[in-house]
Amino acid sequence: MTNEGLSINLATVRQQWNLGEAVEACARHGIKAIDPWRDQVAAFGLAESAKVIKDNGMRVTGYCRGGMFPAADKAGRQAAIDDNRRALDEAAAIGAECIVLVVGGLPDGFRDIVAAREMVAEGLADILPHARAVKVPLAIEPLHPMYAGDRACVNTLGQALDLCDALGPDVGVAIDVYHVWWDPDVARQVARAGRARRIFAYHICDWLVPTRDMLLDRGMMGDGVIDLKAWARMIDDAGYHGFHEVEIFSGENWWKKPGDEVLETCLERFRATL
Amino acid sequence: MTNEGLSINLATVRQQWNLGEAVEACARHGIKAIDPWRDQVAAFGLAESAKVIKDNGMRVTGYCRGGMFPAADKAGRQAAIDDNRRALDEAAAIGAECIVLVVGGLPDGFRDIVAAREMVAEGLADILPHARAVKVPLAIEPLHPMYAGDRACVNTLGQALDLCDALGPDVGVAIDVYHVWWDPDVARQVARAGRARRIFAYHICDWLVPTRDMLLDRGMMGDGVIDLKAWARMIDDAGYHGFHEVEIFSGENWWKKPGDEVLETCLERFRATL
Repeated sequence: MTNEGLSINLATVRQQWNLGEAVEACARHGIKAIDPWRDQVAAFGLAESAKVIKDNGMRVTGYCRGGMFPAADKAGRQAAIDDNRRALDEAAAIGAECIVLVVGGLPDGFRDIVAAREMVAEGLADILPHARAVKVPLAIEPLHPMYAGDRACVNTLGQALDLCDALGPDVGVAIDVYHVWWDPDVARQVARAGRARRIFAYHICDWLVPTRDMLLDRGMMGDGVIDLKAWARMIDDAGYHGFHEVEIFSGENWWKKPGDEVLETCLERFRATL
Repeated sequence: MTNEGLSINLATVRQQWNLGEAVEACARHGIKAIDPWRDQVAAFGLAESAKVIKDNGMRVTGYCRGGMFPAADKAGRQAAIDDNRRALDEAAAIGAECIVLVVGGLPDGFRDIVAAREMVAEGLADILPHARAVKVPLAIEPLHPMYAGDRACVNTLGQALDLCDALGPDVGVAIDVYHVWWDPDVARQVARAGRARRIFAYHICDWLVPTRDMLLDRGMMGDGVIDLKAWARMIDDAGYHGFHEVEIFSGENWWKKPGDEVLETCLERFRATL
């Protein structure tokens, strides 16, 4: 069995380690790739983060996260654009292979989700030239519909791919099984994403029944109801042979366990999905 | 202003009143229609329920609920069919204009949502002759994707309408804004449902930000992020001019308030959506 092919989204061990400790722990476990969050990079320092990543020969399968485009006024939307440009610069500095975009939900007091979606399309178009300039592709992550109000109004893979088609090259999708496993149209859209070479990242975890918290109760692979073996085949059939990135927010369970135990479990459960 | 056009799903006041009390309270408030749940009818008695509904001249905009078709084995699936036939008989006895179907999620230990969806299609086909015999149309309710694992693996209006197309007449949809408001394809599917005369029920409430409980934290119209005025126009444009049924599960808020206050608020907020 191999540890190749697994990436750890560092949110998975955010309560246990800082960025440097997490990178070194991944290296100890033979894990070759990570995806850090902006707050983790900021806390550890951008130059220091880039150095520890490079010194440990880590691939960076994504940088979490840009997006959050909708805002109630023009100044708010411009602030989001500016912030996304900074995030792209950081992503470039650490060698990230894409930036993961959580596009944002409804601005405070808004009820017009169609308008919010237009703000997202405009925001993406606004940051794309800078993404190209710094050579960090945009990976739109469709989020589960339960986050449509407050986190992301792009809620299906098909919707994300429609945005990609409108924007052209250097825009793709981050497919997280947690967000899209339920979608009756998802097999067709994964194949479409593969044909268009738009799958920039593939995230895994599991959907627990019951789910006790809408944000912080993601399951470890195998503990929930997502058919991850079928997903691994589907993604492979679509022509994506990159890393499988584990991203688990788990306030009451995995965040409370020793980091090494979490990584060992991620490795074991990842292999069981192949 | 009018109280016409409003129906109260009796789950909304299930903690305050039994079925008889709820029907009489609705009548006092000038409300002309209700949708009771099976457990409420069972607790009050089927004949007694039919009588109090008739005596108060109430329309019955739906009966909650049938469905729950997937099961791990054939005996389980047959038990579901039998139970749905009983539910249809009850619906007929109280004069319900449709039975609302929450189709069921994944059986225990299952991860194959495609197979679960096939079980749903088979279950619907199995009960349809009895529905026609007792003249109670089937209203498939697509549920929010956050319930795909445990409550309903029909999660978009388009998916529900595809099932309707396969089944023929006397099958339609119950459109609950809570479940489908986020869907980027929903306007097109509402229009499709209207053209096919498949809109058998329209349920309203609101999506709260934040949502504190995945089941019992639905909001009163106006307290959340759903554009209910736009929805009312869209449903009307689709040719649906039936009742707007308020269905609110609210463990920590509306279920704790006096029933009369809840009904008054439903009326006031319903009018504000028109």
